Parts: sequence; structure tokens; C-alpha cells
Amino acid sequence: MPDTTLLEVFPAPACDGGPIVIEHVSDEFTSLCPKTGHPDFGSVTLRYQPAPGGVCVELKSLKLYYQSFRSEGIFYEAVTSTIRDHLVELMKPTWLQIITDWKGRGGIRSLIRAEHGEVPPEWRGR
Amino acid sequence: MPDTTLLEVFPAPACDGGPIVIEHVSDEFTSLCPKTGHPDFGSVTLRYQPAPGGVCVELKSLKLYYQSFRSEGIFYEAVTSTIRDHLVELMKPTWLQIITDWKGRGGIRSLIRAEHGEVPPEWRGR
Amino acid sequence: MPDTTLLEVFPAPACDGGPIVIEHVSDEFTSLCPKTGHPDFGSVTLRYQPAPGGVCVELKSLKLYYQSFRSEGIFYEAVTSTIRDHLVELMKPTWLQIITDWKGRGGIRSLIRAEHGEVPPEWRGR
Amino acid sequence: MPDTTLLEVFPAPACDGGPIVIEHVSDEFTSLCPKTGHPDFGSVTLRYQPAPGGVCVELKSLKLYYQSFRSEGIFYEAVTSTIRDHLVELMKPTWLQIITDWKGRGGIRSLIRAEHGEVPPEWRGR
Amino acid sequence: MPDTTLLEVFPAPACDGGPIVIEHVSDEFTSLCPKTGHPDFGSVTLRYQPAPGGVCVELKSLKLYYQSFRSEGIFYEAVTSTIRDHLVELMKPTWLQIITDWKGRGGIRSLIRAEHGEVPPEWRGR
Amino acid sequence: MPDTTLLEVFPAPACDGGPIVIEHVSDEFTSLCPKTGHPDFGSVTLRYQPAPGGVCVELKSLKLYYQSFRSEGIFYEAVTSTIRDHLVELMKPTWLQIITDWKGRGGIRSLIRAEHGEVPPEWRGR
Amino acid sequence: MPDTTLLEVFPAPACDGGPIVIEHVSDEFTSLCPKTGHPDFGSVTLRYQPAPGGVCVELKSLKLYYQSFRSEGIFYEAVTSTIRDHLVELMKPTWLQIITDWKGRGGIRSLIRAEHGEVPPEWRGR
Amino acid sequence: MPDTTLLEVFPAPACDGGPIVIEHVSDEFTSLCPKTGHPDFGSVTLRYQPAPGGVCVELKSLKLYYQSFRSEGIFYEAVTSTIRDHLVELMKPTWLQIITDWKGRGGIRSLIRAEHGEVPPEWRGR
Amino acid sequence: MPDTTLLEVFPAPACDGGPIVIEHVSDEFTSLCPKTGHPDFGSVTLRYQPAPGGVCVELKSLKLYYQSFRSEGIFYEAVTSTIRDHLVELMKPTWLQIITDWKGRGGIRSLIRAEHGEVPPEWRGR
Amino acid sequence: MPDTTLLEVFPAPACDGGPIVIEHVSDEFTSLCPKTGHPDFGSVTLRYQPAPGGVCVELKSLKLYYQSFRSEGIFYEAVTSTIRDHLVELMKPTWLQIITDWKGRGGIRSLIRAEHGEVPPEWRGR
Repeated sequence: MPDTTLLEVFPAPACDGGPIVIEHVSDEFTSLCPKTGHPDFGSVTLRYQPAPGGVCVELKSLKLYYQSFRSEGIFYEAVTSTIRDHLVELMKPTWLQIITDWKGRGGIRSLIRAEHGEVPPEWRGR
Repeated sequence: MPDTTLLEVFPAPACDGGPIVIEHVSDEFTSLCPKTGHPDFGSVTLRYQPAPGGVCVELKSLKLYYQSFRSEGIFYEAVTSTIRDHLVELMKPTWLQIITDWKGRGGIRSLIRAEHGEVPPEWRGR
Repeated sequence: MPDTTLLEVFPAPACDGGPIVIEHVSDEFTSLCPKTGHPDFGSVTLRYQPAPGGVCVELKSLKLYYQSFRSEGIFYEAVTSTIRDHLVELMKPTWLQIITDWKGRGGIRSLIRAEHGEVPPEWRGR
Repeated sequence: MPDTTLLEVFPAPACDGGPIVIEHVSDEFTSLCPKTGHPDFGSVTLRYQPAPGGVCVELKSLKLYYQSFRSEGIFYEAVTSTIRDHLVELMKPTWLQIITDWKGRGGIRSLIRAEHGEVPPEWRGR
Repeated sequence: MPDTTLLEVFPAPACDGGPIVIEHVSDEFTSLCPKTGHPDFGSVTLRYQPAPGGVCVELKSLKLYYQSFRSEGIFYEAVTSTIRDHLVELMKPTWLQIITDWKGRGGIRSLIRAEHGEVPPEWRGR
Repeated sequence: MPDTTLLEVFPAPACDGGPIVIEHVSDEFTSLCPKTGHPDFGSVTLRYQPAPGGVCVELKSLKLYYQSFRSEGIFYEAVTSTIRDHLVELMKPTWLQIITDWKGRGGIRSLIRAEHGEVPPEWRGR
Repeated sequence: MPDTTLLEVFPAPACDGGPIVIEHVSDEFTSLCPKTGHPDFGSVTLRYQPAPGGVCVELKSLKLYYQSFRSEGIFYEAVTSTIRDHLVELMKPTWLQIITDWKGRGGIRSLIRAEHGEVPPEWRGR
Repeated sequence: MPDTTLLEVFPAPACDGGPIVIEHVSDEFTSLCPKTGHPDFGSVTLRYQPAPGGVCVELKSLKLYYQSFRSEGIFYEAVTSTIRDHLVELMKPTWLQIITDWKGRGGIRSLIRAEHGEVPPEWRGR
Repeated sequence: MPDTTLLEVFPAPACDGGPIVIEHVSDEFTSLCPKTGHPDFGSVTLRYQPAPGGVCVELKSLKLYYQSFRSEGIFYEAVTSTIRDHLVELMKPTWLQIITDWKGRGGIRSLIRAEHGEVPPEWRGR
Repeated sequence: MPDTTLLEVFPAPACDGGPIVIEHVSDEFTSLCPKTGHPDFGSVTLRYQPAPGGVCVELKSLKLYYQSFRSEGIFYEAVTSTIRDHLVELMKPTWLQIITDWKGRGGIRSLIRAEHGEVPPEWRGR
């Protein structure tokens, strides 16, 4: 089961010098199709701007959190909004995006994008 | 014949956390040229934002719907606007795009793009 | 000589559902350099939005029209604006772009872009 | 020495039909590092919109002009602004961009961009 | 230790002709993970517009400065904001961006972006 | 049904000057899965050396022959050996290869290779 | 646990016309590291020539067999030789290769190749 | 009409130091389909080893010779063997290959390879 | 200093089923130039066949061994032959190859290849 | 003028452990066309096996030697055989290859390959 207790944070670097945008791309995400039980494979892109005085998610803890979906039967759309919701709750960032990019099923590849907050125009539509 | 009875929907994930954009890319679309009867081959990209409290098209049903064009004599432009119209009627999404990308005929590749609703600027021109 | 009598049109699909953008890319364009008589090779991209109740250029007739430049001595810039002017006169579209992309001469590749009408920002600079 | 007498122009095509944007990319530019005397290699992209009733630079003369930097000791930044200034003076275009893209030195690749006039947003940041 | 005394500047070319944007991409950056002591590898992109009458960082001095991180235990985020702060202090540019792109750790690639000043929209989100 | 009556030949060019090897690659092959009825998509590569004084398959007739598999329920392996057998019977070439390359099913891509005659070592294992 | 009871076969096509070589590439293989318990991700390529009058592995059963490694703690080398041994026992092919290609761990990508029988020279070293 | 009088030669460099292999790749070849009159587009690769004390074809003359096919109605196979025969007669090389690679017609790309003399194994099958 | 005490081995899988070839590619190798002290960056490919009843190098220990070159002043050729000699002594494999691929210096990229034992022809020249 | 006095050597690593093959690829070679005086641009690949107890060419001296062709009017074939002869005389290697790869002139790219000694089959035809 997706396990948010695995997630850890650390203080974001002081943003006096201007905002920082952070992106982590995992090419090794797998969960199970809730209808057939077959594994789904995809990549997950997390992009966010930490809140002033806020926190960043620790990289290894993020990896372990993603691994906790391995035996979960869950739709593409729910993977995407669940990760979004968990990480927003964890970090309360200025804005955040989750993009999941799934290997083809029946000849159809899928990308799902979920956002939180005021994503600046230059990051939208990616 | 394009068969809309094949299409199924499921409730979109709650969008309290912010909007979701969904994209399905099929590289295995084929129909027939209405003039020559020869097969046309292309890819079809569907991109949309479900309406609040709305629905999503189910992936396998979408594949079967696309397959129902296999013996249809139909122009590129009509494929594109027909799929757009069918899926808009089915899902009544906030916005929706259909992009068809056809393999070359006579040395000319073609892309046709149809839209519905207020497509945000970051998704236009893709 | 560029022969506009080769060009044929058909009625654009009804645009009640929203606008349609059409793109045809020919990788097999050739004309002659008017100074040296040597052949030039390039690709021609046509992108346009049919006027409401307007027409579309028929694909095979477009190919024949492009072939009519084969023995023409004409500069890159003139190829581009000539095709633009001919197709605008033919279709009277809402907007239209012609982009020619020429193989290198003397180590220099060239791209020429001509437009007509109010090309939406997402299509400019392509 | 950069030799502007090599540059020739010809009248831009009439722009009644709408503006034209012209781009020439040379992958074969070389000059000398003014500090070490070692050769630098790069590409030069020229992009501009001729003024109404204005002129275009002739392609072969542009090639010869670029070749006149071959024995010149000159910094990346100066190459870029020098070419910009010379071509602006020559053509007095509506707007113009020069982008130089240099092969790595000490593991660092460099791109320098110089502009003149009101470059439309779709061409900026390229 | 990151050593700013290595950095040298030279006067920016006169910007009467219009602004200049400079980009240096180093694919050979390495530092140490402060938790495990293992080496991290990545690329660093510096992009900036010199202030009018301002200065540019000298390329070889930039390379030596980057090399001074080789034995430093430092997080991705801190590398990025440290380089930003040092170069802003050095050059006081109109605007500046630092983008670090790190090779995968535990199957996750990371990109960190820091900015200073009013970065024009065409450079944001790169 | 695969229809060999569609196939036409023409005399191979005289091979006094040395052997000729001919390759035709079709990226637009489709048949049906005999178990599920779903369409399969792939490419078919034909490579052969005409017999001395022999014949070549005519290109357009080959295209029509491939199209005759469109409604056929047939396994990958049988497509490959059937085409091999039909073309060997038609042309009696010195040697011949058929390579079919199928889009993924269930996350698995497949390539099937069938040969006839003494395929020279440089063409084997392709 | 790797479950060979999932594997099914069907008769190979008659090879009177000459040998057939079959290749199946799965990009969606995952198992667990036996030391750390962390998931490993890779692709598995199976290449073989069925014995005369022999059998082929059925594609869907192969997929299910691969999925049975999902919760198995097993080294790269053992995955490779285990699959080789299981499929050799199942099909008794003329020859067979297994190539596993693993995503990076600690900055190191790995490929393991195992063979059975007299693999022809054109297939070795792939 | 293919015009061999355009071809010029120059003495091959002395081969005391060991053999030389020369390759010229033209991406700008066009001729006409003898059945339909439509233009064909392709690339032509010439690879050869000059005979000891022999000659090389001059590059510009080769370009003009290729251009002389521009208005010729001729099949792919005949283009290939004609060029082979003409250049063998011209240069009498130790060995020679001609490979023509044609843009798709009806969804089928074609490559034709003709050889003369004892082409070493490392150059065959290219 | 290159530290062979970091290297660990484990027993190779039984090779009754036929030989196994193992390849590890590290894209994160760095050492120092012995003349200038500047860092060098490259990739190291290890490919080998374990001796019957022999051993394999453990992946994490290999990574630590490679890291021990980080502060070593050593030429490309010596890196390559040193790693070859150390790993041959450690594993006494049937055969072994080391290929180092170095990022450009002064515009020149370098690859160095060292071998041990009877490398089969299919692996040579890689 | 090509200046062999620039070339320096150092002793090859002891080859008790087996042969070493060295490759240096320069993407920044330029000379002049002896007919037109225009610059030619290409890459030069040097590949060789040092003789037992022999020498290697020093990398920086090789770069300076290549730079000495900058103002030389010389044909592609002569560049290739001249470099071959100079480096063979300098190093007396077991075998050596020079491959020059030239940017297009008149739409034709050229590759010239010269060899010395018994080049093993795995390196021929590269």
C-alpha cells in the first residue's frame, strides 16, 4: 500500500536569491492494474517549488515511497492524484506537478498530469 | 463503422486537489481511403481535462472504438472531427483535443488537429 | 512552371465542434537555383485553418502542384511566398503558414517562413 | 579580418501577403581564440525579418563573410555581436537574431545570443 | 571547497545593439554526497544577461571554479543555489539562471533550477 | 485472405556486372490475431537476390499482396513463413529473407525471421 | 517464484522452407535484489531457433512466466541462467539466447548473456 | 539522360602505404518513375577501392552526372545497375558498390545494392 | 589510489547450460590528468566470460574500486590496462575486455581498448 | 603546412596482458580545397595498435599537428593518406587506420579510409 510514513523532508535552501524549482524523474515505477492484476510500468515526474521557509522531499525516501505502490491495484489516474495529494500534504509547496507516463497497453500509451497551486505558465503543458 | 456503443466511461478522480489532464496516444490506427480504398495508417492523440464531477473514457473501450474504423472509408479530416465529436458527446469534458498524425502518402505526411472548449494555451499548437 | 490549375479543393468539415488545424509536410520538394541552374532540395510545410464554411486543398493535387516547381528557376524566398500566395488565393483560409527548409548549400542550411492572416501565437515561430 | 565588403543584398520579396522570416544556419564557422591562438569551431544561426521594401543578404556572400573570420583572434561574445552589428547595418531589418553555438572547450559548451529590434516573443529564447 | 577566488571576469560587449544572452553548459561536474560520501555526477547550465556596462565570467576560470566542488560534500539543491549566489555576486547580471541535471540515483534523475532577477518568460521553464 | 494472384514480376536487371540485392521495407502491415481477433501491426522486410535471368517482384503488386492480410487471422510465425513461401514460389530467387517486426503486445515486442536458400553471412542475423 | 507451469507451447511452423529465428523482447521485467530487497528493472530478450518439428513458446504465457519473478529475490546472473534453463527444458530448441539488460545501479548498467546450443555466429555478441 | 561525358577522374593517391576506400553519399538524387512519370527521391552511396595506379572520380563531376538523371524515367533497379556500370567503366576500380535508398512509395521503402569485383567481407551487407 | 582490496567476488553461476557473458558499463568514471592535474571524465565498459567454476566481480565493490581512481593522476592508456590487469588477477576469467571512452579534450575524443585471453570474434572490435 | 615536428610520442603501456587498441576522434578538422580555396570541414578518426615495446602519439601534439592543416590546400584523399603516412612513420604501429568524414559539398558527403599493416577483421569496414 502507498505508505506515506516512508517520506522524509529536509529544509529547503533559503530562497532569498530567488525561487528554486526541483524535478525528480523516476523511470522505475510499477503498480498493478486493479482490473486484471497485471503489472503496469511507467515513469513518474515530480516538479515543485518549495514554499518560502518550507521543505523538500528527501530523495531516498521518495524512492521507497514509490516502491510502496508495487503491490497496489490502482488506476493510472489514481496513482497520479494520490502521489500529488500525498506530496502536497507532506511539503505544502508553492506549487507542484505530477506527470505519469505509462508504457503502452493495447497499443495505447498514456500520460496523466495533476497539478496543485499556481503552476507558472512555463511549467504547464509539459 | 465507427461504433460509439463500444465506449465506456468511469468517474474522473475528484479534482479538489487541482485539475487533471489526460493523454492517450494510439500508434495503431488504420482506416481506409474513401477514394482509393487503400488503407491509411496513423496515430491518434486524445488529450482532455475531465469536467468537475465528470467522467473519463475507459482505455480498453477506447481501443475497441478506434478499431471500429478499420473497415471505414473516411478522410483524414473526418476521422479527426468524428472522434472529437464522439468523445465530446461521451465525456462532456472541460476541453478536449484530437491530433491525428498520418504516415506519408505521395511523399506528404499530414497532421490534423481538432479541439473542443477552451483549450489552455500551453496545450494549443501541439 | 508552378501550375495552380493543378490544385483542387473540397469542403472543410463543419467546424461547429471547434476549429481544425491542418498540416501537410512534403519532404520531396525540388526546384532549380535561378543563378546556377543547379537543383535545390527541401521540405515544404503547409499549415492552415480553413475558413468557416471554407475549403481544404486536396492532398494529391497539392503533390502535383509542388511537382510543377521541378524545372523552375526560383529563389528560396520566392518559392515560399509564391506557394503562400497561391494557396491563400485558392482556399482563403482563416490563417496559413508556409515553411520551407532547404538542404545545405555551401555549408549553410536555410529556413524561410511566410504567413497569412492572424496566425495564433502557438503556431508562430515554428 | 571580418570583411563586410563581401556582403551582398537583394530586394526582399514584397510582403503584401504578410511578413517573412528567414533563417540561415552555418555549421562550419571557425575563428581563433585571442588568448591561445587555438581555433574555435561553432555554428552561427542568423534569423531576421526583412524591413518592408528592404533587402535580404545573399547566401553565398554570407558564406564568404563568415569565412573572413577564419584567421581572426576574437572572443565568442565579440563574434556574436560583431556579426549582429554588421548585418543590421547591411540590411536594416525589422528585427534580427544571431545565435552562436560553440563546441566544448575544457568540457564547457557555450551559446551566445544577440538581438536587434523588436524580436517577436515566439523567436526569443531560441 | 568551492573557491570563488578562482573566478575572473571581463567587460561585457557594449550592448548598444541590443541585449546579449550567454549560456555555458558543463557536462563534467562532480561533487560528493554529504550523507554517503559517494560521488555525484551532473551537468551545470549557466545562463545570464550581463548588466549594461557589466561583466562576463571568463570561461576557463569558470571551469576551475566548478572543479573546486570535486571534494565537497554538498546536496544537489545547495550546489545549485551556491553557484547561483556566487555568480550573482561576481557579475551582478541583469538576470541569471543555474540548472543542474544529475545522473540517476536509485533510479531517480533530478534537475534543480535556481534563478536571480527578472528572467524573461522565454528562458523560464527550461 | 493472402492473395498471391495480386503479385506481379518483371525481369531482373542483367547481372553481368555482379549480383544485386533488393530490399523492400513496409511499415504498414496489419493482420488479425487468430485467438482474440484484435489487429496486429508490424513492419515486413523483404530482402533477396534475384536468380540470374530471374525476376523481381513489382513494388505496387507487393503492396496489394500485403494488404490482402488485413482481415486474416494469422499468427506472427505463420505470416512470416507464408510470405516467405509465396515469394520464393513467385521469384525463385538465389536467396530470400523475410523479417517481421511486431509492435508490442503485453509489453513484449517480437521479431520473426525466415530464410530461403544460401543467405550470405553478411545478411544473416539482421 | 519463477513458475514454469505458466509456460505453454505451440507447434513451430514447418521449416521445410528453411529455418526460422524468433525473438521476443520484454521491456517490463522486474525482480528483487536478494541483498537489499530493492526492485531491479530490466529488459529480457529471448532469441531462439525452434528444433525441426519442435515447439514455440506462447507469447502470453511467456509474459505471465516473466511476471512470476516479480517478488523473487534473485541476482542478475541467476535471472538470466534460470530463464535460459527453463526455456531450454520447455522447447528443446536448436539454439537459444537470453540477454538481460538492467537499468543502472550505482551508476553501472549491466548486461548478462546466456546461450544454449550452437548459436550461429551472426547472433553471437548481440 | 544519364550523361557519362560529365564524369571526370584524377589519379588515385599512391597506395604504397596500403589500400584506400572512398565513399561518397548523395542525399539529393531524383529521377522519374517510368510508369507514372512521378518523381522518385533517394540517396546514392558510392563506395570503392581505386585500382593500384588507378583513378578516382572527381566529386563535382559526380554531382553533375547524378543530376543528369533528373528527367529520366527509370526504375530503382536500373538506376542502381546503370550507375554501377558507368562508374566501373570510368574508373576500373578494384571493387565498387552502389547502394540506392529510396523514400517510401505506397508505404514501402526500398534499398537496392549492386556490386562489382571482390568486395571485401567487411563492406558487404551494408 | 586504485585500491584492489575493495573488490569482492562471488561464484559464477554453473555454466553447464552454456557460457555466460557479463557486461558492466559505468558512465561515471573520473580520474586526474597526470600532466595538468585537471579531471578526466569517461565511461568504463567491463566485459568478460567467467572461467568454469570461477567467480564474478560483485557490482557494488566494482563501483567502489572505480571510485578509488578519483584522485589518481593517470593516463587514459594506463587506466585501461590497470583495470584490465587488476580484474584479470581477481577473477582469472576465460577472457576479458576493458573499453574506456573519454570525453573530448582539445576537441578530440578517445577510446582505449584492452583485452585478455581469447576474446571471441563477436566481441572484438566493440 | 602539415608539420610533423609537432608530433610527440610516449612509450606504450606494456602489452604483456594482451594488445591495446587506441582510437582518437577529432571533430574539428579543417583544411582548404586546393581548387577553390574554400575551407573544408570534417572529422578525423585515428585507430591503431601500438607495436610491442612501441610508442603512442601524445594527444595534445596530435591536436597541434591536425591544426597545421588549417591553411593547407589539399584534397580529401591526400589529407587521409598524408596523416596515415606521417603517423605510421612516427609510431611504426602494428596496424593503423585513418578515417576522414567530410561535411557535404554540393549535396555529397564523403568518407575516406586508409590503412597500414594487418588491420584485424573486426576493425575493417568501420
